[in-house]
Amino acid sequence: MQKIEVKVPAVPQGSYTIAIGADFLDSIIAQIKTLLRDKPLFILTDTNVAKAGHLEKLTAGTKIPCHIITPPGEISKHIATVTKIIEQMEKEALGRDCAVIALGGGTAGDIAGFVAAIYKRGVPVVHIPTTTVSQADSSIGGKTGVDSSISKNAYGAFYHPSAVFIDVATLKTLDEKQFNSGLVESIKHALIADADYFDYLTKNLEDIIARKYEPLEYIARQNCRIKAAVVEEDPCEKNKRRMLNYGHTIGHAVESASEYKLSHGQAVAIGIIAANIIEQKLGIDSKKRLDELKQLFGKLNINLQVPANIKTGELLDIISRDKKAVNKWPRFVLLEKTGKVLCKDGQWACQIEQKIVREAIDILLKQQF
Amino acid sequence: MQKIEVKVPAVPQGSYTIAIGADFLDSIIAQIKTLLRDKPLFILTDTNVAKAGHLEKLTAGTKIPCHIITPPGEISKHIATVTKIIEQMEKEALGRDCAVIALGGGTAGDIAGFVAAIYKRGVPVVHIPTTTVSQADSSIGGKTGVDSSISKNAYGAFYHPSAVFIDVATLKTLDEKQFNSGLVESIKHALIADADYFDYLTKNLEDIIARKYEPLEYIARQNCRIKAAVVEEDPCEKNKRRMLNYGHTIGHAVESASEYKLSHGQAVAIGIIAANIIEQKLGIDSKKRLDELKQLFGKLNINLQVPANIKTGELLDIISRDKKAVNKWPRFVLLEKTGKVLCKDGQWACQIEQKIVREAIDILLKQQF
Repeated sequence: MQKIEVKVPAVPQGSYTIAIGADFLDSIIAQIKTLLRDKPLFILTDTNVAKAGHLEKLTAGTKIPCHIITPPGEISKHIATVTKIIEQMEKEALGRDCAVIALGGGTAGDIAGFVAAIYKRGVPVVHIPTTTVSQADSSIGGKTGVDSSISKNAYGAFYHPSAVFIDVATLKTLDEKQFNSGLVESIKHALIADADYFDYLTKNLEDIIARKYEPLEYIARQNCRIKAAVVEEDPCEKNKRRMLNYGHTIGHAVESASEYKLSHGQAVAIGIIAANIIEQKLGIDSKKRLDELKQLFGKLNINLQVPANIKTGELLDIISRDKKAVNKWPRFVLLEKTGKVLCKDGQWACQIEQKIVREAIDILLKQQF
Repeated sequence: MQKIEVKVPAVPQGSYTIAIGADFLDSIIAQIKTLLRDKPLFILTDTNVAKAGHLEKLTAGTKIPCHIITPPGEISKHIATVTKIIEQMEKEALGRDCAVIALGGGTAGDIAGFVAAIYKRGVPVVHIPTTTVSQADSSIGGKTGVDSSISKNAYGAFYHPSAVFIDVATLKTLDEKQFNSGLVESIKHALIADADYFDYLTKNLEDIIARKYEPLEYIARQNCRIKAAVVEEDPCEKNKRRMLNYGHTIGHAVESASEYKLSHGQAVAIGIIAANIIEQKLGIDSKKRLDELKQLFGKLNINLQVPANIKTGELLDIISRDKKAVNKWPRFVLLEKTGKVLCKDGQWACQIEQKIVREAIDILLKQQF
């Protein structure tokens, strides 16, 4: 047998800019055109965003082909939506020199990122997130993905955007529930990385809820700073990036078991409580934080009750099929204290016995926390 | 407006090994297990390969979950096949720690590579090509992709394998047409990179057609060497890698217009003739090579007649939608001489007026070459 070695060349370091401001949506297309040297553009958005007037403000009379995802929300984050969009792009005769713009929340961003990653082997994507979740989380970091008929993010790729534009004025059109539940990702960032930021959120929640531009821009900056730092260190989630999954393992399971009747933010809030229960079971003192969290989530009107039809066994089954599972059981991110993730033997996600997780879920479902 | 810069870290250089030999299929799984540290495996193959006995020989009694693509061939290289496979992998409870093995021709390899690229944001893939096309071409270089209902490789990614195993004994089970037409990619490699290799192919064609192991291993090595050198220099097809598309722009159009009744090899042979006609039109002396090519393709029983129902306008229309198109017209790879691609102003693919391409296609369709 003879062997030939094929070298896969290094990909050099790159970078992209997150621009944060208020009320500048109508200047973004011009900035993108300069940045991407007049590539043909294609906009992905959804009916909610279009109805809110953001699409019109963004395009300001210029003609850019557009796909409006309908129905909006998680239910459309499916491979079937991707095939529809790609066929439309082909009909628009867009070649591999085009670029995709995501205007909207996590769903539009995740779909657009994945479409860009796989369209004709990859075209650039620019994110313009318009929700509290997507401005805090999903537009940064290059994770893209859509669901199969069986599970969340069965399809996906790591694919970094060419730019991100965060206009906090777009948050004004969100309803209270969507606005508030999206703040859970900000709380998560504070919990895993910055106790001062957690303090800021606790003290300034009224101004944030009142959607004042200054605190909104402030939290956008904190979120981007925290997430970017983690992603820069571990872009493909080999280890440290896993800390961003705090509250997400059980959160995703609850979200999935509810058939997405629970919002992502509500599910993650429940997942954060579950993580806290596990922490307490392991003897990491976190009772004080549990009280702070219950108060914070309470002010945001986030219901921490898991729907009664969801049972422990079902959640454990979903967890065993988590995409991060190794030997059919995922690792869990836990806090050492507010602002600091527990790092054990160099690992930012820990192996936790199924028994402990089962007990924690029982407590969660019975609301005994 | 405030700006935050996100660094996308460099991805370091990697490498993978192509092992070339004869009759060692039954030792490959053990080698993969060592290489990938016992990751759960999933095999993708097709009914032809299974019928030929290669799947049985590969697995040799070990139980590895498997998807057998049916019907075999280009028609299954569609996003719908990908969704079917991914749902099967989910049902097998395969996590992101699994790896995909492609056993078969270009279709199995392209599908498996794409599935691996997008399954749970990416798992390793190992190629075991079993056809002349895939051993020469598609298993090396990291191009993956599947078709939409509108065009070829509308979906795709650049995704390098973890290893490639080329067992030339698997070629024994191919029918004559498939074996011969697959040699067109070897001829293409010789044309773009190595006049001595072109000479070898001309002189040793009988032994190759007789499927003697020694010349088959020799051409496998030449093909891998040539393709690897190009891919190493330009993995994402920014420029030099385009030379591998010699004969493919018009070839793909003919293949597509024939609704894939023409084999890929036959279509590329026709595309190579078309490229030669364009070269002659541009005053690059290539008449002698045209005669050599006609003789070579003749010995391989490759029909250079474009089906009568295909018209020039249809081909031009398909070419304008080529995924490499910029402003709706692709660049064309041409030869300066046998073994050397024409490089103009640092570009390995040239802008050619539509008028010249139209005239060349007219000559091609009327068989006036």
